[in-house]
Amino acid sequence: MKIKVGVSNRHIHLTEDAYRLLFEKNLTKKSDLSQPGQFSSEEVLTIEANGKKIDNVRIVGPFRKYNQVEISRRDARFLGINPPVRKSGDLKDACDIIISNEQGRYKLKDCCIIANRHVHISNSYAKELRLKDNDEVKIVIPKDKGGIVKAFIKTSDDAVLELHIDTDDANAFNLNTGDEVELIL
Amino acid sequence: MKIKVGVSNRHIHLTEDAYRLLFEKNLTKKSDLSQPGQFSSEEVLTIEANGKKIDNVRIVGPFRKYNQVEISRRDARFLGINPPVRKSGDLKDACDIIISNEQGRYKLKDCCIIANRHVHISNSYAKELRLKDNDEVKIVIPKDKGGIVKAFIKTSDDAVLELHIDTDDANAFNLNTGDEVELIL
Repeated sequence: MKIKVGVSNRHIHLTEDAYRLLFEKNLTKKSDLSQPGQFSSEEVLTIEANGKKIDNVRIVGPFRKYNQVEISRRDARFLGINPPVRKSGDLKDACDIIISNEQGRYKLKDCCIIANRHVHISNSYAKELRLKDNDEVKIVIPKDKGGIVKAFIKTSDDAVLELHIDTDDANAFNLNTGDEVELIL
Repeated sequence: MKIKVGVSNRHIHLTEDAYRLLFEKNLTKKSDLSQPGQFSSEEVLTIEANGKKIDNVRIVGPFRKYNQVEISRRDARFLGINPPVRKSGDLKDACDIIISNEQGRYKLKDCCIIANRHVHISNSYAKELRLKDNDEVKIVIPKDKGGIVKAFIKTSDDAVLELHIDTDDANAFNLNTGDEVELIL
């Protein structure tokens, strides 16, 4: 079956407490993301490790119950860190990273990962397809630098069906948000 | 069968005539590359398109019969160009790109490509495996962000068996030069 691709750039999820340490004003929606309720905010931070910095990393809302910084392998090489490949919310062995803006600078412990490729799917549609959370599926990418990659199922009540990949994958396979790939059950 | 990976960063191949327009001194070997006779040189150039520049792009010797600039999709996005995915030497629909250093600046026509994934193999070993130039093979990448990609066979008399990928692939699959992957015949 065909599914659409969403390319995730590096971004930050914060708890409200972590956010308040660096911002006076409230988190402000810039634009809705494809998954219901998720939005990219006006607020950005600098991330830093080993003296290397990446500016303008956007906070994705709403607030989470944990802090999580998702970067690409390319970012990780630049920053000189080696974060594990994890599904969102699994912060086992995650790296520390410093976040800052003009108001402050502090280290977020155990928060930085490279997100695994994952397929958002609603609980009801997953049930129909006999898929459950964390199942592994294959994705066939038909481009001139195509291939087959594995991805993990991520169910939620109101998910929009979509494959999420990072910018390294997007570049390696020449994929853009909105492109179609094939999901093999 | 297991084969080793070689990661190619962006680089430039030039004819001697094209080289002489920008350098007084001879092309100087910096270090040998894995394929016999190939070397990265001390000489670097800036590549440029649409007012965007990437500095320190290394010339790979020896001189070629054609000019060819190999970049990654990420570089291409940054430069605002859309080069085709091609095997080395196939410059159909290749992009123009400006090269420069302190001595000069000129446009190289029809030279910029994204190199396809390819497997260097000697003629004799290819024959033994019943492979020929341009055959498509599958590569299984066993990492945590692994997958299966296609690659093309590139035969020459004295080739060292090696899969060549670009930095986008290396980042997407978390591969480094010297890592092992599996070639499926």
